[in-house]
Amino acid sequence: MAQYEKRIDRLRERLHEFRLDGFLISIPYNRYYLSGFAADDPQVMEISGFVLVGSDTRAILTDGRYATQAKNESPDFEVYVYTAEPLPTFQEAVFRANIRRLGIESRHLSVHLFDKLAEGLGQKGVEVVKTEDVVEPLRAIKDPPELDCIIAALRVTEKAFKEVLGQLRPGMTEREVASRIESAMVASGAQGVAFDSIVASGPNAALPHAVPTDRQIREGEPIVFDIGARKDMYCSDMSRTVFLGEPDERFKEIYGLVRKAQLRAINGVKPGMKTDEADSLARDIIEEAGYGDFFLHSLGHGVGIATHEPPSLRRIFPVELMENMVITIEPGIYLPEWGGVRLEEMVVIRKGGAELLNEDKTFYPFDEKG
Amino acid sequence: MAQYEKRIDRLRERLHEFRLDGFLISIPYNRYYLSGFAADDPQVMEISGFVLVGSDTRAILTDGRYATQAKNESPDFEVYVYTAEPLPTFQEAVFRANIRRLGIESRHLSVHLFDKLAEGLGQKGVEVVKTEDVVEPLRAIKDPPELDCIIAALRVTEKAFKEVLGQLRPGMTEREVASRIESAMVASGAQGVAFDSIVASGPNAALPHAVPTDRQIREGEPIVFDIGARKDMYCSDMSRTVFLGEPDERFKEIYGLVRKAQLRAINGVKPGMKTDEADSLARDIIEEAGYGDFFLHSLGHGVGIATHEPPSLRRIFPVELMENMVITIEPGIYLPEWGGVRLEEMVVIRKGGAELLNEDKTFYPFDEKG
Repeated sequence: MAQYEKRIDRLRERLHEFRLDGFLISIPYNRYYLSGFAADDPQVMEISGFVLVGSDTRAILTDGRYATQAKNESPDFEVYVYTAEPLPTFQEAVFRANIRRLGIESRHLSVHLFDKLAEGLGQKGVEVVKTEDVVEPLRAIKDPPELDCIIAALRVTEKAFKEVLGQLRPGMTEREVASRIESAMVASGAQGVAFDSIVASGPNAALPHAVPTDRQIREGEPIVFDIGARKDMYCSDMSRTVFLGEPDERFKEIYGLVRKAQLRAINGVKPGMKTDEADSLARDIIEEAGYGDFFLHSLGHGVGIATHEPPSLRRIFPVELMENMVITIEPGIYLPEWGGVRLEEMVVIRKGGAELLNEDKTFYPFDEKG
Repeated sequence: MAQYEKRIDRLRERLHEFRLDGFLISIPYNRYYLSGFAADDPQVMEISGFVLVGSDTRAILTDGRYATQAKNESPDFEVYVYTAEPLPTFQEAVFRANIRRLGIESRHLSVHLFDKLAEGLGQKGVEVVKTEDVVEPLRAIKDPPELDCIIAALRVTEKAFKEVLGQLRPGMTEREVASRIESAMVASGAQGVAFDSIVASGPNAALPHAVPTDRQIREGEPIVFDIGARKDMYCSDMSRTVFLGEPDERFKEIYGLVRKAQLRAINGVKPGMKTDEADSLARDIIEEAGYGDFFLHSLGHGVGIATHEPPSLRRIFPVELMENMVITIEPGIYLPEWGGVRLEEMVVIRKGGAELLNEDKTFYPFDEKG
């Protein structure tokens, strides 16, 4: 439980910057990060619980369905159980924690619940303050136990990919290939997928977020894989592009270019670099080759309890890369009708630069000249 | 597409009651219900799109990842595509729809996005109005195509249950049994589960929302199953309780009581009845037998695109049952240490009363005297 204590301490320092003496966490990823309470929200608009942090308080507010789980998973937390009308429980918990200015997560909390809390706690003299990105910057920097989980999730993904790569045959459908990869991940100990797997062949590979279809894979086309497992609550995310049969010149050229851009970014990122600079490392190469309009997304993103989390390696709203961030480096080129190539590696930012987390080496040796 | 047109017409009538001339739908279930746009939200705090309804407007606002899907699934809708900063697209769409008072779904929309829309649209003279439960009451009344989907989802669930019931052996773990049921549902054409399956044996069955564990099932204990499939976007939800080996007197008594309460409710519910009355039909029987404190939840809930949706068959905040609502009738008794019994059927409310949707008859013939 030591890691939760450290994280709560770091959160309290951050609350100080926001002049808050309490914080109510509703975002499931942040809840788990701070408390170990792992219950997912059961469905849209149903919340399995809240973490409440005060100067001397660590509590979980939940309903009867999750009370036992909360006590087991978060033994150092008080557990409050609310009923269909949760407000009195919130009032009691906030009062007992002696909180006067309570932050909430405005990107997640619904307008309805916010209004209810603002009014109900306001009556007790508590100010409810909208905040954004209070916990996320903490989560962006991984501690050693987190890195272990991420690597474990990545190994499961790589193993499943390797296994299914050996089974690939023309005539298998994208959906079938995706399903085999997902089963292989679970068989190797994944809790499940980190996100819906992408297996996109031929023209489908021209869509960065293609959904697997009943299209049969065939020779002479690129196939983009974008897959990830969740293990011990942490995510992995990797992409590979393969070509059944003998790669043609166009594939070699596009692939070589994407790989060159990727390697330049992996070799170039380091602490202190802004995310827009990082993105440019790869994008400049693709733009100079005349394919800038076909690199349809940003260079990468943080990975942890969520598949997509800060930092986003994009040009707008740039932020600084810092030591122990775990990010993806995933340039891609997508040509309508023809298909696409995306290559995605995961790295952890170290003092000296990026340390590669992937072990899988399923890359073709092409350069941008094919 | 005719059903979407009818639903939008009913929504427009309802907007009139709220003095709104436009409505922005963010709840995924409502989005699908009104437009057929089926994309799930990809992860917490990521929205795959919005449906915008005006007096003469039907539109979907989404990002580049889902634009093609939206056009395919909702051919009668205009599709607007926004980027990382979506506000200008919202302003344009709302302006072109000539909307002056725009309702939003305050139980779902985040505080952050609400504030952004209220300010950004406010500058254009549009008032953004918080609303609740505008679309849900429409969804509570099922039209014939919806009922077909729900029945199809229930058949898949019943088939999987029957199949796995035949395989049950002492020594199998709860998790293994749950996994077999889920695989059987998918093999029969389910898109997936409607919710995480419950297989709870012995003392675990005393928790209404138990999660399957590695506990081995054994003779001489109740096993509660609560399972459901999603098929064609609609959910099913059923519970059965079985006993491996020869049922003992206590099980017979509890089971007989729950079953009697269930049958009384099924035979008693009808249009015009309030949900608290419906709940009492079953609860009175259980209370009179002295087990009132152990019936830990309400009698049931609506089922449709969501597993839990209005009406809730509870005592507080009662509402009226209406023709063509689809609900569960699921009394239960839960005894700490010992276990529990829950029996859940799905019915559609018809003019003359409840019409049973389940075909499965896996019930013991016990009455409350064992």
